Amino acid sequence: MKWKRSERLVDMTHYLMEHPQQLIPLTFFADSYQSAKSSISEDLSIVKETFEERGIGLLVTVPGAAGGVKYIPKVQERQVKEIVEELKSELAHSDRLLPGGYLFMTDLLGNPELVNRVGKVFASAFFDQKIDVIMTVATKGISIAHAIARHLNVPVVVVRRDNKVTEGSTVSINYVSGSSRRIQTMVLSKRSMKSGQRVLITDDFMKVGGTMNGMKNLLEEFDCTLAGCAVLVEAEHPDERLVDDYYSLVKLKEVNEKDRTIELTEGNYFSKGGN
Amino acid sequence: MKWKRSERLVDMTHYLMEHPQQLIPLTFFADSYQSAKSSISEDLSIVKETFEERGIGLLVTVPGAAGGVKYIPKVQERQVKEIVEELKSELAHSDRLLPGGYLFMTDLLGNPELVNRVGKVFASAFFDQKIDVIMTVATKGISIAHAIARHLNVPVVVVRRDNKVTEGSTVSINYVSGSSRRIQTMVLSKRSMKSGQRVLITDDFMKVGGTMNGMKNLLEEFDCTLAGCAVLVEAEHPDERLVDDYYSLVKLKEVNEKDRTIELTEGNYFSKGGN
Repeated sequence: MKWKRSERLVDMTHYLMEHPQQLIPLTFFADSYQSAKSSISEDLSIVKETFEERGIGLLVTVPGAAGGVKYIPKVQERQVKEIVEELKSELAHSDRLLPGGYLFMTDLLGNPELVNRVGKVFASAFFDQKIDVIMTVATKGISIAHAIARHLNVPVVVVRRDNKVTEGSTVSINYVSGSSRRIQTMVLSKRSMKSGQRVLITDDFMKVGGTMNGMKNLLEEFDCTLAGCAVLVEAEHPDERLVDDYYSLVKLKEVNEKDRTIELTEGNYFSKGGN
Repeated sequence: MKWKRSERLVDMTHYLMEHPQQLIPLTFFADSYQSAKSSISEDLSIVKETFEERGIGLLVTVPGAAGGVKYIPKVQERQVKEIVEELKSELAHSDRLLPGGYLFMTDLLGNPELVNRVGKVFASAFFDQKIDVIMTVATKGISIAHAIARHLNVPVVVVRRDNKVTEGSTVSINYVSGSSRRIQTMVLSKRSMKSGQRVLITDDFMKVGGTMNGMKNLLEEFDCTLAGCAVLVEAEHPDERLVDDYYSLVKLKEVNEKDRTIELTEGNYFSKGGN
Protein backbone atom coordinates (compact mmCIF):
# COMPACT_ATOMS: atom_id res chain seq x y z
CA MET A 1 0.00 0.00 0.00
CA LYS A 2 1.28 3.44 -0.89
CA TRP A 3 0.90 6.02 1.84
CA LYS A 4 -0.38 9.55 1.43
CA ARG A 5 1.84 12.38 2.60
CA SER A 6 -0.60 13.32 5.35
CA GLU A 7 -0.52 9.79 6.78
CA ARG A 8 3.25 9.61 6.48
CA LEU A 9 3.63 12.87 8.42
CA VAL A 10 1.52 11.59 11.31
CA ASP A 11 3.28 8.25 11.50
CA MET A 12 6.72 9.75 11.04
CA THR A 13 6.17 12.26 13.84
CA HIS A 14 5.11 9.45 16.14
CA TYR A 15 8.05 7.28 15.13
CA LEU A 16 10.62 10.04 15.60
CA MET A 17 9.19 10.97 18.99
CA GLU A 18 9.47 7.37 20.14
CA HIS A 19 13.06 7.10 18.89
CA PRO A 20 14.90 10.23 20.01
CA GLN A 21 18.65 10.56 19.44
CA GLN A 22 18.63 7.62 17.03
CA LEU A 23 19.87 7.84 13.50
CA ILE A 24 17.10 6.54 11.25
CA PRO A 25 18.07 5.78 7.62
CA LEU A 26 15.82 7.36 5.00
CA THR A 27 15.39 3.91 3.48
CA PHE A 28 13.62 2.83 6.67
CA PHE A 29 10.86 5.34 6.04
CA ALA A 30 10.91 4.77 2.27
CA ASP A 31 10.39 1.03 2.76
CA SER A 32 7.88 1.47 5.54
CA TYR A 33 5.67 3.77 3.43
CA GLN A 34 6.47 2.35 -0.01
CA SER A 35 7.48 5.83 -1.08
CA ALA A 36 10.36 7.37 -2.98
CA LYS A 37 13.27 8.72 -0.98
CA SER A 38 12.67 12.16 -2.51
CA SER A 39 9.14 12.20 -1.07
CA ILE A 40 10.50 11.15 2.32
CA SER A 41 13.02 14.00 2.18
CA GLU A 42 10.24 16.47 1.51
CA ASP A 43 8.20 15.02 4.40
CA LEU A 44 11.16 15.36 6.71
CA SER A 45 11.70 19.00 5.85
CA ILE A 46 8.10 19.71 6.86
CA VAL A 47 8.59 17.79 10.11
CA LYS A 48 11.87 19.60 10.75
CA GLU A 49 10.37 23.04 10.25
CA THR A 50 7.39 22.32 12.48
CA PHE A 51 9.51 20.71 15.21
CA GLU A 52 11.80 23.73 15.31
CA GLU A 53 9.06 26.31 15.16
CA ARG A 54 6.99 24.72 17.92
CA GLY A 55 9.87 23.99 20.28
CA ILE A 56 9.54 20.23 19.87
CA GLY A 57 13.18 19.78 18.97
CA LEU A 58 15.73 19.56 16.20
CA LEU A 59 15.78 17.26 13.23
CA VAL A 60 19.33 16.66 12.11
CA THR A 61 20.04 15.15 8.72
CA VAL A 62 23.23 13.16 8.23
CA PRO A 63 24.02 12.83 4.51
CA GLY A 64 25.59 9.86 2.78
CA ALA A 65 25.09 6.12 2.60
CA ALA A 66 25.35 5.63 6.36
CA GLY A 67 23.25 8.74 6.92
CA GLY A 68 19.71 9.38 7.96
CA VAL A 69 17.72 11.61 10.23
CA LYS A 70 17.86 12.10 13.97
CA TYR A 71 15.30 13.72 16.27
CA ILE A 72 16.90 15.62 19.12
CA PRO A 73 14.41 16.72 21.79
CA LYS A 74 15.14 20.33 22.63
CA VAL A 75 12.92 22.82 24.38
CA GLN A 76 12.84 26.57 23.81
CA GLU A 77 13.70 29.11 26.49
CA ARG A 78 10.03 30.01 27.00
CA GLN A 79 9.25 26.37 27.84
CA VAL A 80 11.97 26.31 30.49
CA LYS A 81 10.69 29.58 31.95
CA GLU A 82 7.17 28.13 32.05
CA ILE A 83 8.21 25.05 33.98
CA VAL A 84 10.39 27.05 36.39
CA GLU A 85 7.45 29.35 37.16
CA GLU A 86 5.13 26.38 37.58
CA LEU A 87 7.54 24.68 39.97
CA LYS A 88 8.08 27.88 41.94
CA SER A 89 4.38 28.48 42.44
CA GLU A 90 3.70 24.81 43.25
CA LEU A 91 6.52 24.59 45.77
CA ALA A 92 5.63 27.84 47.52
CA HIS A 93 2.47 26.41 49.11
CA SER A 94 2.95 26.53 52.86
CA ASP A 95 1.42 23.09 53.35
CA ARG A 96 4.53 21.65 51.70
CA LEU A 97 6.57 22.62 54.76
CA LEU A 98 7.82 19.62 56.69
CA PRO A 99 9.60 19.47 60.06
CA GLY A 100 13.26 20.45 59.73
CA GLY A 101 12.62 22.85 56.88
CA TYR A 102 12.14 20.14 54.27
CA LEU A 103 9.66 20.50 51.43
CA PHE A 104 7.13 17.87 50.42
CA MET A 105 7.77 17.23 46.71
CA THR A 106 6.75 13.59 46.32
CA ASP A 107 3.54 14.48 44.48
CA LEU A 108 5.43 16.50 41.87
CA LEU A 109 7.90 13.66 41.32
CA GLY A 110 4.93 11.35 40.79
CA ASN A 111 3.29 13.57 38.16
CA PRO A 112 4.26 11.97 34.84
CA GLU A 113 3.38 14.98 32.70
CA LEU A 114 5.47 17.38 34.78
CA VAL A 115 8.35 14.95 35.16
CA ASN A 116 8.36 14.34 31.41
CA ARG A 117 8.78 18.06 30.76
CA VAL A 118 11.51 18.35 33.40
CA GLY A 119 13.31 15.45 31.73
CA LYS A 120 13.10 17.16 28.35
CA VAL A 121 14.48 20.40 29.80
CA PHE A 122 17.52 18.65 31.30
CA ALA A 123 18.01 16.56 28.17
CA SER A 124 18.04 19.82 26.19
CA ALA A 125 20.97 21.11 28.24
CA PHE A 126 23.00 18.07 27.19
CA PHE A 127 21.56 17.56 23.72
CA ASP A 128 24.91 17.87 21.92
CA GLN A 129 27.07 16.04 24.46
CA LYS A 130 27.97 12.41 24.62
CA ILE A 131 26.01 10.91 27.51
CA ASP A 132 26.08 7.13 27.98
CA VAL A 133 24.22 6.66 31.26
CA ILE A 134 21.93 8.57 33.64
CA MET A 135 22.67 7.83 37.29
CA THR A 136 20.48 8.58 40.28
CA VAL A 137 20.06 7.37 43.83
CA ALA A 138 16.93 5.58 45.05
CA THR A 139 14.14 6.60 45.43
CA LYS A 140 12.97 10.07 44.60
CA GLY A 141 15.28 10.87 41.69
CA ILE A 142 14.24 7.83 39.65
CA SER A 143 11.32 9.43 37.81
CA ILE A 144 13.44 12.39 36.70
CA ALA A 145 16.31 10.10 35.69
CA HIS A 146 13.99 8.06 33.47
CA ALA A 147 12.46 11.16 31.91
CA ILE A 148 15.91 12.50 30.98
CA ALA A 149 16.99 9.06 29.79
CA ARG A 150 13.99 8.69 27.51
CA HIS A 151 14.83 11.95 25.75
CA LEU A 152 18.53 11.11 25.44
CA ASN A 153 17.93 7.42 24.63
CA VAL A 154 20.36 6.08 27.23
CA PRO A 155 19.94 3.68 30.19
CA VAL A 156 19.31 4.60 33.83
CA VAL A 157 21.29 3.13 36.71
CA VAL A 158 19.95 3.42 40.25
CA VAL A 159 22.31 3.59 43.20
CA ARG A 160 20.89 1.99 46.34
CA ARG A 161 21.47 2.46 50.05
CA ASP A 162 21.30 -1.27 50.71
CA ASN A 163 22.51 -4.42 49.05
CA LYS A 164 19.88 -6.65 47.44
CA VAL A 165 20.25 -10.13 46.01
CA THR A 166 18.57 -9.06 42.77
CA GLU A 167 21.44 -6.68 42.00
CA GLY A 168 24.04 -9.44 41.67
CA SER A 169 27.63 -8.49 42.52
CA THR A 170 27.91 -4.89 43.61
CA VAL A 171 30.44 -2.15 44.23
CA SER A 172 29.89 -0.21 47.40
CA ILE A 173 31.41 2.98 48.75
CA ASN A 174 31.16 4.99 51.95
CA TYR A 175 30.69 8.72 51.80
CA VAL A 176 29.96 11.59 54.14
CA SER A 177 26.47 13.06 53.76
CA GLY A 178 26.70 16.79 53.27
CA SER A 179 24.52 18.26 55.99
CA SER A 180 24.47 15.62 58.74
CA ARG A 181 28.16 14.67 58.30
CA ARG A 182 27.17 11.03 58.83
CA ILE A 183 28.95 8.19 57.07
CA GLN A 184 26.60 6.59 54.57
CA THR A 185 26.84 3.75 52.07
CA MET A 186 26.05 3.58 48.38
CA VAL A 187 25.75 0.37 46.43
CA LEU A 188 25.66 -0.14 42.68
CA SER A 189 25.39 -3.32 40.66
CA LYS A 190 28.70 -4.16 38.99
CA ARG A 191 26.94 -4.75 35.69
CA SER A 192 25.50 -1.25 35.63
CA MET A 193 28.28 0.55 33.81
CA LYS A 194 31.31 -0.13 31.65
CA SER A 195 34.60 1.70 32.13
CA GLY A 196 34.97 4.86 30.10
CA GLN A 197 31.27 5.77 30.02
CA ARG A 198 30.14 9.36 30.42
CA VAL A 199 27.54 9.69 33.14
CA LEU A 200 24.95 12.34 33.87
CA ILE A 201 23.99 12.37 37.56
CA THR A 202 20.57 13.54 38.64
CA ASP A 203 18.55 13.94 41.83
CA ASP A 204 15.45 15.73 43.04
CA PHE A 205 17.11 17.83 45.73
CA MET A 206 20.60 19.06 46.59
CA LYS A 207 21.76 20.90 49.68
CA VAL A 208 25.52 20.69 50.27
CA GLY A 209 25.83 18.09 47.54
CA GLY A 210 26.93 15.14 49.68
CA THR A 211 24.81 12.61 47.81
CA MET A 212 25.84 14.00 44.45
CA ASN A 213 29.45 13.87 45.54
CA GLY A 214 29.00 10.29 46.71
CA MET A 215 27.72 9.33 43.26
CA LYS A 216 30.70 11.13 41.74
CA ASN A 217 33.03 9.00 43.85
CA LEU A 218 31.13 5.88 42.85
CA LEU A 219 31.67 6.78 39.18
CA GLU A 220 35.39 6.70 39.72
CA GLU A 221 35.19 3.14 41.01
CA PHE A 222 33.76 2.23 37.61
CA ASP A 223 36.38 4.28 35.71
CA CYS A 224 33.58 6.42 34.36
CA THR A 225 33.54 10.16 33.77
CA LEU A 226 31.11 12.75 35.09
CA ALA A 227 29.34 14.40 32.16
CA GLY A 228 27.17 16.70 34.28
CA CYS A 229 24.71 17.04 37.15
CA ALA A 230 21.03 17.96 37.06
CA VAL A 231 18.93 18.70 40.14
CA LEU A 232 15.33 19.79 40.28
CA VAL A 233 15.66 21.90 43.43
CA GLU A 234 18.83 23.18 45.05
CA ALA A 235 18.78 24.67 48.52
CA GLU A 236 20.71 27.75 49.62
CA HIS A 237 23.36 26.71 52.07
CA PRO A 238 26.12 28.54 53.99
CA ASP A 239 28.68 25.74 53.65
CA GLU A 240 30.75 25.24 50.57
CA ARG A 241 29.13 23.00 48.02
CA LEU A 242 30.78 19.64 47.34
CA VAL A 243 29.66 19.76 43.72
CA ASP A 244 29.88 22.93 41.74
CA ASP A 245 29.12 22.02 38.16
CA TYR A 246 25.39 21.36 38.01
CA TYR A 247 22.11 22.56 36.54
CA SER A 248 19.15 23.37 38.78
CA LEU A 249 15.67 24.54 37.85
CA VAL A 250 14.61 26.04 41.17
CA LYS A 251 16.49 27.37 44.17
CA LEU A 252 15.08 27.21 47.68
CA LYS A 253 16.26 30.50 49.19
CA GLU A 254 14.69 30.41 52.61
CA VAL A 255 12.21 28.51 54.67
CA ASN A 256 10.64 30.15 57.67
CA GLU A 257 9.07 27.46 59.82
CA LYS A 258 7.51 29.97 62.24
CA ASP A 259 5.75 32.11 59.63
CA ARG A 260 5.37 29.10 57.36
CA THR A 261 6.76 30.87 54.31
CA ILE A 262 8.88 29.43 51.54
CA GLU A 263 11.04 31.63 49.35
CA LEU A 264 12.05 30.30 45.95
CA THR A 265 13.91 31.70 42.99
CA GLU A 266 14.97 30.51 39.58
CA GLY A 267 17.78 27.92 39.59
CA ASN A 268 21.03 28.30 37.66
CA TYR A 269 19.75 26.66 34.44
CA PHE A 270 19.79 29.88 32.46
CA SER A 271 22.90 31.44 33.97
CA LYS A 272 24.77 28.24 33.17
CA GLY A 273 23.61 28.55 29.58
CA GLY A 274 21.31 25.54 29.61
CA ASN A 275 19.35 27.12 26.82
CA MET B 1 -0.03 33.00 10.91
CA LYS B 2 -2.19 30.42 9.20
CA TRP B 3 -0.87 26.89 9.34
CA LYS B 4 -0.72 24.46 6.46
CA ARG B 5 -2.37 21.07 6.91
CA SER B 6 0.97 19.28 6.78
CA GLU B 7 2.34 21.39 9.62
CA ARG B 8 -0.85 21.02 11.63
CA LEU B 9 -0.66 17.22 11.33
CA VAL B 10 2.89 17.12 12.65
CA ASP B 11 2.20 19.44 15.56
CA MET B 12 -1.13 17.81 16.40
CA THR B 13 0.42 14.35 16.50
CA HIS B 14 3.09 15.63 18.87
CA TYR B 15 0.54 17.41 21.05
CA LEU B 16 -1.78 14.42 21.29
CA MET B 17 1.10 12.09 22.14
CA GLU B 18 2.19 14.40 24.94
CA HIS B 19 -1.36 14.64 26.31
CA PRO B 20 -2.79 11.11 26.37
CA GLN B 21 -6.21 10.46 27.92
CA GLN B 22 -6.98 14.19 27.96
CA LEU B 23 -10.02 15.68 26.29
CA ILE B 24 -8.79 18.46 24.04
CA PRO B 25 -11.45 20.85 22.69
CA LEU B 26 -11.41 21.37 18.92
CA THR B 27 -11.25 25.11 19.59
CA PHE B 28 -7.86 24.60 21.20
CA PHE B 29 -6.44 23.38 17.90
CA ALA B 30 -8.49 25.86 15.85
CA ASP B 31 -7.09 28.77 17.89
CA SER B 32 -3.60 27.38 17.99
CA TYR B 33 -3.42 27.01 14.22
CA GLN B 34 -5.71 29.89 13.22
CA SER B 35 -7.76 27.41 11.27
CA ALA B 36 -11.45 26.65 10.84
CA LYS B 37 -12.94 23.92 13.00
CA SER B 38 -13.93 22.04 9.87
CA SER B 39 -10.30 21.86 8.78
CA ILE B 40 -9.31 20.65 12.24
CA SER B 41 -11.94 17.92 12.02
CA GLU B 42 -10.54 16.76 8.72
CA ASP B 43 -7.01 16.77 10.19
CA LEU B 44 -8.18 14.70 13.12
CA SER B 45 -9.75 12.07 10.94
CA ILE B 46 -6.41 11.62 9.16
CA VAL B 47 -4.64 11.36 12.53
CA LYS B 48 -7.25 8.92 13.78
CA GLU B 49 -6.96 6.63 10.79
CA THR B 50 -3.16 6.58 10.91
CA PHE B 51 -3.07 6.05 14.69
CA GLU B 52 -5.41 3.09 14.41
CA GLU B 53 -3.75 1.53 11.39
CA ARG B 54 -0.24 1.75 12.85
CA GLY B 55 -1.11 0.58 16.34
CA ILE B 56 -0.38 3.95 17.91
CA GLY B 57 -3.74 4.14 19.63
CA LEU B 58 -7.32 5.33 19.42
CA LEU B 59 -8.59 8.82 18.79
CA VAL B 60 -11.97 9.27 20.40
CA THR B 61 -14.16 12.20 19.48
CA VAL B 62 -16.64 13.50 22.00
CA PRO B 63 -19.30 15.64 20.27
CA GLY B 64 -21.00 18.72 21.66
CA ALA B 65 -19.99 22.00 23.25
CA ALA B 66 -18.03 20.33 26.04
CA GLY B 67 -16.58 17.85 23.57
CA GLY B 68 -13.27 17.42 21.90
CA VAL B 69 -10.81 14.74 21.02
CA LYS B 70 -8.92 12.29 23.21
CA TYR B 71 -5.87 10.19 22.36
CA ILE B 72 -5.91 6.79 24.02
CA PRO B 73 -2.61 4.90 23.73
CA LYS B 74 -3.41 1.34 22.72
CA VAL B 75 -1.11 -1.25 21.26
CA GLN B 76 -2.03 -4.01 18.84
CA GLU B 77 -1.69 -7.70 19.64
CA ARG B 78 1.41 -8.02 17.44
CA GLN B 79 3.16 -5.33 19.48
CA VAL B 80 2.45 -7.22 22.71
CA LYS B 81 3.70 -10.46 21.15
CA GLU B 82 6.85 -8.66 20.04
CA ILE B 83 7.66 -7.37 23.50
CA VAL B 84 6.87 -10.70 25.15
CA GLU B 85 9.25 -12.46 22.76
CA GLU B 86 11.90 -9.83 23.34
CA LEU B 87 11.60 -10.17 27.12
CA LYS B 88 11.68 -13.95 26.94
CA SER B 89 14.85 -14.03 24.87
CA GLU B 90 16.52 -11.32 26.97
CA LEU B 91 15.69 -13.02 30.26
CA ALA B 92 16.79 -16.47 29.11
CA HIS B 93 20.50 -15.56 29.12
CA SER B 94 22.19 -17.75 31.70
CA ASP B 95 24.32 -14.89 33.00
CA ARG B 96 21.15 -13.42 34.48
CA LEU B 97 21.04 -16.22 37.03
CA LEU B 98 21.65 -15.01 40.57
CA PRO B 99 22.13 -17.03 43.77
CA GLY B 100 18.81 -18.34 45.06
CA GLY B 101 17.29 -18.67 41.60
CA TYR B 102 16.71 -14.94 41.16
CA LEU B 103 17.08 -13.25 37.78
CA PHE B 104 19.04 -10.10 37.15
CA MET B 105 16.56 -7.67 35.51
CA THR B 106 17.85 -4.29 36.64
CA ASP B 107 19.26 -3.45 33.21
CA LEU B 108 15.90 -4.05 31.53
CA LEU B 109 14.12 -1.88 34.09
CA GLY B 110 16.65 0.86 33.34
CA ASN B 111 16.10 0.73 29.58
CA PRO B 112 13.76 3.66 28.86
CA GLU B 113 12.70 2.50 25.41
CA LEU B 114 11.75 -0.99 26.59
CA VAL B 115 10.07 0.28 29.76
CA ASN B 116 8.09 2.79 27.71
CA ARG B 117 6.68 0.01 25.54
CA VAL B 118 5.90 -2.15 28.58
CA GLY B 119 4.05 0.80 30.07
CA LYS B 120 2.01 1.24 26.91
CA VAL B 121 1.12 -2.46 26.85
CA PHE B 122 -0.19 -2.38 30.43
CA ALA B 123 -1.95 0.94 29.86
CA SER B 124 -3.67 -0.69 26.87
CA ALA B 125 -5.14 -3.39 29.11
CA PHE B 126 -6.81 -0.70 31.21
CA PHE B 127 -7.50 1.85 28.48
CA ASP B 128 -11.27 1.96 29.07
CA GLN B 129 -11.26 1.69 32.84
CA LYS B 130 -11.22 4.45 35.39
CA ILE B 131 -7.74 4.48 36.92
CA ASP B 132 -6.83 7.31 39.30
CA VAL B 133 -3.43 6.29 40.58
CA ILE B 134 -0.60 3.86 39.79
CA MET B 135 0.99 2.37 42.90
CA THR B 136 4.28 0.55 43.19
CA VAL B 137 6.84 -0.26 45.84
CA ALA B 138 10.40 1.10 45.83
CA THR B 139 12.67 0.57 43.97
CA LYS B 140 12.52 -1.63 40.92
CA GLY B 141 8.87 -1.12 39.95
CA ILE B 142 9.13 2.66 39.70
CA SER B 143 10.18 2.86 36.06
CA ILE B 144 7.29 0.63 34.95
CA ALA B 145 4.83 2.54 37.13
CA HIS B 146 5.84 5.83 35.52
CA ALA B 147 5.63 4.38 32.03
CA ILE B 148 2.07 3.15 32.64
CA ALA B 149 1.17 6.43 34.33
CA ARG B 150 2.38 8.51 31.43
CA HIS B 151 0.13 6.62 29.03
CA LEU B 152 -2.87 6.81 31.35
CA ASN B 153 -2.17 10.37 32.48
CA VAL B 154 -2.43 9.64 36.20
CA PRO B 155 -0.01 10.11 39.12
CA VAL B 156 2.35 7.51 40.58
CA VAL B 157 2.64 6.80 44.29
CA VAL B 158 5.64 4.92 45.63
CA VAL B 159 5.35 2.77 48.73
CA ARG B 160 8.54 2.65 50.78
CA ARG B 161 10.07 0.18 53.20
CA ASP B 162 11.27 2.92 55.51
CA ASN B 163 9.92 6.19 56.83
CA LYS B 164 11.56 9.36 55.56
CA VAL B 165 11.10 12.93 56.74
CA THR B 166 10.46 14.10 53.18
CA GLU B 167 7.27 12.02 53.00
CA GLY B 168 5.48 14.00 55.70
CA SER B 169 2.90 12.08 57.75
CA THR B 170 2.62 8.49 56.65
CA VAL B 171 0.41 5.45 57.00
CA SER B 172 2.28 2.24 57.64
CA ILE B 173 1.22 -1.40 57.64
CA ASN B 174 2.84 -4.70 58.44
CA TYR B 175 2.44 -7.62 56.10
CA VAL B 176 3.82 -11.10 55.62
CA SER B 177 6.15 -11.48 52.65
CA GLY B 178 5.02 -14.33 50.44
CA SER B 179 8.02 -16.58 50.15
CA SER B 180 10.09 -15.89 53.27
CA ARG B 181 7.05 -15.53 55.58
CA ARG B 182 8.81 -12.64 57.30
CA ILE B 183 6.91 -9.69 58.72
CA GLN B 184 7.70 -6.58 56.69
CA THR B 185 6.63 -2.97 56.76
CA MET B 186 5.24 -0.69 54.07
CA VAL B 187 5.00 3.03 54.41
CA LEU B 188 3.05 5.49 52.27
CA SER B 189 2.71 9.24 52.55
CA LYS B 190 -0.75 10.22 53.79
CA ARG B 191 -1.07 12.81 51.04
CA SER B 192 -0.56 10.22 48.31
CA MET B 193 -4.16 9.21 47.76
CA LYS B 194 -7.69 10.37 48.43
CA SER B 195 -10.39 8.01 49.58
CA GLY B 196 -12.41 6.43 46.80
CA GLN B 197 -9.65 6.39 44.22
CA ARG B 198 -9.18 3.44 41.92
CA VAL B 199 -5.62 2.18 42.01
CA LEU B 200 -3.60 0.07 39.59
CA ILE B 201 -0.78 -1.76 41.38
CA THR B 202 2.40 -2.68 39.53
CA ASP B 203 5.73 -4.34 40.21
CA ASP B 204 8.59 -5.89 38.28
CA PHE B 205 8.34 -9.37 39.77
CA MET B 206 5.79 -11.51 41.60
CA LYS B 207 6.23 -14.87 43.22
CA VAL B 208 3.54 -15.71 45.78
CA GLY B 209 2.26 -12.15 45.64
CA GLY B 210 3.12 -11.08 49.19
CA THR B 211 4.26 -7.61 48.20
CA MET B 212 1.29 -7.13 45.90
CA ASN B 213 -1.00 -8.27 48.68
CA GLY B 214 0.69 -5.86 51.08
CA MET B 215 -0.04 -3.00 48.70
CA LYS B 216 -3.64 -4.20 48.44
CA ASN B 217 -3.94 -4.00 52.22
CA LEU B 218 -2.39 -0.56 52.20
CA LEU B 219 -5.03 0.57 49.69
CA GLU B 220 -7.73 -0.35 52.14
CA GLU B 221 -6.19 1.93 54.78
CA PHE B 222 -6.77 4.77 52.32
CA ASP B 223 -10.31 3.63 51.48
CA CYS B 224 -9.22 3.11 47.91
CA THR B 225 -10.20 0.35 45.48
CA LEU B 226 -7.99 -2.05 43.58
CA ALA B 227 -8.48 -1.52 39.86
CA GLY B 228 -5.96 -4.14 38.76
CA CYS B 229 -2.43 -5.51 39.02
CA ALA B 230 0.32 -5.55 36.41
CA VAL B 231 3.61 -7.43 36.79
CA LEU B 232 6.39 -7.73 34.27
CA VAL B 233 7.48 -11.23 35.32
CA GLU B 234 5.60 -13.75 37.43
CA ALA B 235 7.29 -16.82 38.80
CA GLU B 236 5.77 -20.29 38.92
CA HIS B 237 5.16 -21.24 42.52
CA PRO B 238 3.69 -24.27 44.27
CA ASP B 239 1.94 -22.25 47.01
CA GLU B 240 -1.38 -20.58 46.49
CA ARG B 241 -1.03 -17.07 45.16
CA LEU B 242 -2.13 -14.24 47.45
CA VAL B 243 -3.26 -12.17 44.48
CA ASP B 244 -5.15 -13.77 41.63
CA ASP B 245 -6.35 -10.94 39.44
CA TYR B 246 -3.28 -9.65 37.63
CA TYR B 247 -1.69 -9.26 34.22
CA SER B 248 1.80 -10.58 33.54
CA LEU B 249 3.88 -10.40 30.39
CA VAL B 250 6.32 -13.22 31.08
CA LYS B 251 6.24 -16.28 33.31
CA LEU B 252 9.37 -17.76 34.83
CA LYS B 253 8.65 -21.51 34.69
CA GLU B 254 11.84 -22.98 36.01
CA VAL B 255 15.34 -22.05 36.96
CA ASN B 256 17.99 -24.74 37.10
CA GLU B 257 20.94 -23.38 39.03
CA LYS B 258 23.07 -26.43 38.37
CA ASP B 259 22.67 -26.47 34.58
CA ARG B 260 22.27 -22.71 34.54
CA THR B 261 19.14 -22.81 32.43
CA ILE B 262 16.12 -20.53 32.62
CA GLU B 263 12.75 -21.56 31.25
CA LEU B 264 10.29 -18.82 30.39
CA THR B 265 6.86 -18.74 28.81
CA GLU B 266 4.31 -16.10 27.87
CA GLY B 267 2.54 -14.51 30.84
CA ASN B 268 -1.25 -14.38 31.23
CA TYR B 269 -1.70 -11.07 29.37
CA PHE B 270 -3.45 -12.66 26.42
CA SER B 271 -5.40 -15.32 28.27
CA LYS B 272 -6.78 -12.61 30.54
CA GLY B 273 -7.90 -10.69 27.46
CA GLY B 274 -5.46 -7.83 27.79
CA ASN B 275 -5.67 -7.29 24.09
